[in-house]
Amino acid sequence: MRCLTMPLREDRPEITLTAYLWDSSPSLPQGPRPAVLICPGGGYMYLSDREAEPIALRFMAMGYQAFVARYEVYREGGACVYPDAVIDVGRAMLTIRRNAADWQVDGSRVALCGFSAGGHNVLMYSQWWNKAVLTEALTCPAEELRPAACIAGYPVADGSVVWGERPADDPIMGVFRPYARAITGADDPSEEQVRAVSPAMNDASCMPPTFLWATSEDGLVSARHTLHMAEALSKAGVPFEAHIFEEGGHGLALADQTTSLRAHEMNPDAAKWIDLCGAWLLKRFAMAVPE
Amino acid sequence: MRCLTMPLREDRPEITLTAYLWDSSPSLPQGPRPAVLICPGGGYMYLSDREAEPIALRFMAMGYQAFVARYEVYREGGACVYPDAVIDVGRAMLTIRRNAADWQVDGSRVALCGFSAGGHNVLMYSQWWNKAVLTEALTCPAEELRPAACIAGYPVADGSVVWGERPADDPIMGVFRPYARAITGADDPSEEQVRAVSPAMNDASCMPPTFLWATSEDGLVSARHTLHMAEALSKAGVPFEAHIFEEGGHGLALADQTTSLRAHEMNPDAAKWIDLCGAWLLKRFAMAVPE
Repeated sequence: MRCLTMPLREDRPEITLTAYLWDSSPSLPQGPRPAVLICPGGGYMYLSDREAEPIALRFMAMGYQAFVARYEVYREGGACVYPDAVIDVGRAMLTIRRNAADWQVDGSRVALCGFSAGGHNVLMYSQWWNKAVLTEALTCPAEELRPAACIAGYPVADGSVVWGERPADDPIMGVFRPYARAITGADDPSEEQVRAVSPAMNDASCMPPTFLWATSEDGLVSARHTLHMAEALSKAGVPFEAHIFEEGGHGLALADQTTSLRAHEMNPDAAKWIDLCGAWLLKRFAMAVPE
Repeated sequence: MRCLTMPLREDRPEITLTAYLWDSSPSLPQGPRPAVLICPGGGYMYLSDREAEPIALRFMAMGYQAFVARYEVYREGGACVYPDAVIDVGRAMLTIRRNAADWQVDGSRVALCGFSAGGHNVLMYSQWWNKAVLTEALTCPAEELRPAACIAGYPVADGSVVWGERPADDPIMGVFRPYARAITGADDPSEEQVRAVSPAMNDASCMPPTFLWATSEDGLVSARHTLHMAEALSKAGVPFEAHIFEEGGHGLALADQTTSLRAHEMNPDAAKWIDLCGAWLLKRFAMAVPE
């Protein structure tokens, strides 16, 4: 296999795409493979390695090409990173599509997969891929940016769950105030600002089939983000699958020994999400196998 | 991650070890990782890519370092490749152990995993690691060669099932005659020659815990090879696990879209072997996760 890392912006070497690519062999399935583009989480403050390579290896082991996008996060002074962070996902998508022949990728089947803030970023992308914010920034037709599927683990999807409900002195706002600054530019964003970056509060009809998962015990990003996102998908008639596991805190990643630094992060029930996701993805990503 | 290929013998560039290595990160489990060393099958005539990278990626996705050994196979003129082929596994084991610090491998936990002829090779190794044939060829103490576990899929384990039972004009002997030449040097090996290369016919008490799987419909390498190997392990008091799936022919590999060139090779029942194997391996390969 090949593992390559390349910058997505000439002037920003830390914003990268890492490709995990199958070797070709006459003994293996032939032709271009579907792909999964992964956005790790980290509250737009950093990017969690727990939600990068371990996830890429799982999707690669399913037969797909896998990619990790390291997108724009916290800037000195806490300046807004939006929409730069979502445009970086578009840069990654274009890089994958423009290298499709060399990398043996089926450009029509590139799924997105993000976690927490990365989940927010892929949901935003899934609503914005055909909007001017992306097509103008990247000067390309929307079709080149279309995602084939979207996967989001414990995403931040509905800002009203945070900014509409929590008192200003709630300790959790210590996390969400810089988060708000990162995605809206304001410490205390207006209702309009919140709505603009809340995929669950907007029309989901342009979204691809979507897979969501979360845990009901998540004390940082409530499972209601996921429920409300599912609600929006349902209203828009977009096929989706959602799994809310009862137990487990925020940021479980694969919830097994590959991503757990502490025993309490291992959770055999929540760990089932990746196989559920694999079965769901297979419905649209099955590779052609002759009779 | 890193993917490296290196020769195992200076004079034979095609005999190689390929390493699939996790990147280190402070966010990921720390310290050396257990490893799985994979031997593809191919009847000692060639090496099947279907039983190489796809398998490595599955074990890597479980959190382990993974390796593929491309050992000695068919030589011009059909000369015997034994014991060279099993010594190559020893070369691979020593290379892994001697690079353990750089590659972040737990040298005390290196499992072998082989398929068909590769299954034969890892079973042979698991009986010979502490015998002169390996320790003298490699001039090292047996402990440096000790495998921590052995995994064999549809292995050739009991030559008496082939050479003792099949009439000389059985079409299947068209496959097993060159196979016999490869591992014994004779087209029609004697009972003694057959026994010497039949792990199921020999004392299994030095073998590590072993996982076996096969399919009852396998028309090339009968499931009785696996049953007889299990019998030998049971007699020797070695912990083992064995799964014989009802359906499916020889050489299923992962029995899913990652390794199937034809639809009939995909078999959701047999495909369960890798998760069964992962659960079994975890009992001895669990990584240390602090409370």
